Amino acid sequence: MRTHTEYLQFHLPERMGFVNITSQVREAVSTSGVREGLCLVNAMHITASVFINDDESGLHRDYKKWLEDLAPFDPSPDRYEHNRTGEDNADAHHKRQIMGREVVVAITGGRLDFGRWEQIFYGEFDGRREKRVLVKIIGD
Amino acid sequence: MRTHTEYLQFHLPERMGFVNITSQVREAVSTSGVREGLCLVNAMHITASVFINDDESGLHRDYKKWLEDLAPFDPSPDRYEHNRTGEDNADAHHKRQIMGREVVVAITGGRLDFGRWEQIFYGEFDGRREKRVLVKIIGD
Amino acid sequence: MRTHTEYLQFHLPERMGFVNITSQVREAVSTSGVREGLCLVNAMHITASVFINDDESGLHRDYKKWLEDLAPFDPSPDRYEHNRTGEDNADAHHKRQIMGREVVVAITGGRLDFGRWEQIFYGEFDGRREKRVLVKIIGD
Repeated sequence: MRTHTEYLQFHLPERMGFVNITSQVREAVSTSGVREGLCLVNAMHITASVFINDDESGLHRDYKKWLEDLAPFDPSPDRYEHNRTGEDNADAHHKRQIMGREVVVAITGGRLDFGRWEQIFYGEFDGRREKRVLVKIIGD
Repeated sequence: MRTHTEYLQFHLPERMGFVNITSQVREAVSTSGVREGLCLVNAMHITASVFINDDESGLHRDYKKWLEDLAPFDPSPDRYEHNRTGEDNADAHHKRQIMGREVVVAITGGRLDFGRWEQIFYGEFDGRREKRVLVKIIGD
Repeated sequence: MRTHTEYLQFHLPERMGFVNITSQVREAVSTSGVREGLCLVNAMHITASVFINDDESGLHRDYKKWLEDLAPFDPSPDRYEHNRTGEDNADAHHKRQIMGREVVVAITGGRLDFGRWEQIFYGEFDGRREKRVLVKIIGD
């Protein structure tokens, strides 16, 4: 069995943003030499997500508005008890649960086994600091 | 290490619907010959889900109502910017994030290692076209 | 390839609660002898979750309030058709979809490859009965 591990780094200037990381994951798969297996891609931070969806800027604005409706940013400790700890990012912990922590992708014939429109995104909900994403590949 | 790959096809007549695919996944596990390992099942389309829950029609109607509340179908570009592209399925991209893209299931002793009520579903949110689900099995 | 399987048992006195199971998963990884691989941790019940987030009691109270807003407990069959079956736990089937069924975690150098604040939780939404969580580890 082969395994391969990579850490991707992010530092987004805005509070909430999405970054297409598909090409970086493809390169990791290529580097791994794995022909048949699984590729895990996960946020290593609990106010961020990795998810698969469309690379369409209108949809991304829709997601931001929707997530803001479902779990509004509010630094006060009145809405979120978590913000009594001195943090202001309770909303980000909620948004991340909607969008998910991780994706697991099949590797077939040495490539990500993807549908036509599948793209992998890093989702940031508490930006302006260093964040990491883990890529773990196992297979033959 | 053994690996096995299958593609399931769907074409639902309705916009939103759920299909129990547990028996198809069980057959794939049996075909694979894997006794101990992991089975990934994922939608290959970004307006569809694979999820695990109960095979109970009332619950499925509850899910549909709830998802429609959380992300209503609305083809106009006023609610969803994504629909400015000529698409009318922005709601489906949102519903799929709630229900998830994929499940990973353990294989133990050659069988899906499931709790009593766990059943795997294909969740369609933008039907009336060809869609695919990937089953990828790795193990020994 | 090595594989290892464990079942964790839970019986929470309250309807909704979160239990930090990180140390139990670490022990399973240690027992497995796997140095490089993947670790699946999933609820075996469809009214429960396994998720990764912060071990902060204020945030957990925030999650409970938020999930209750998104899918309120209501045993009547008026809100949820599922409760016409004699069940009163339709809300739990919804809450579990928000928080997710499972996590897949990388194992690197014999340890969970975690970011600083990542902790694994069992999430119960229909407590006061026996529940199980599956830990499946594969790798070398």
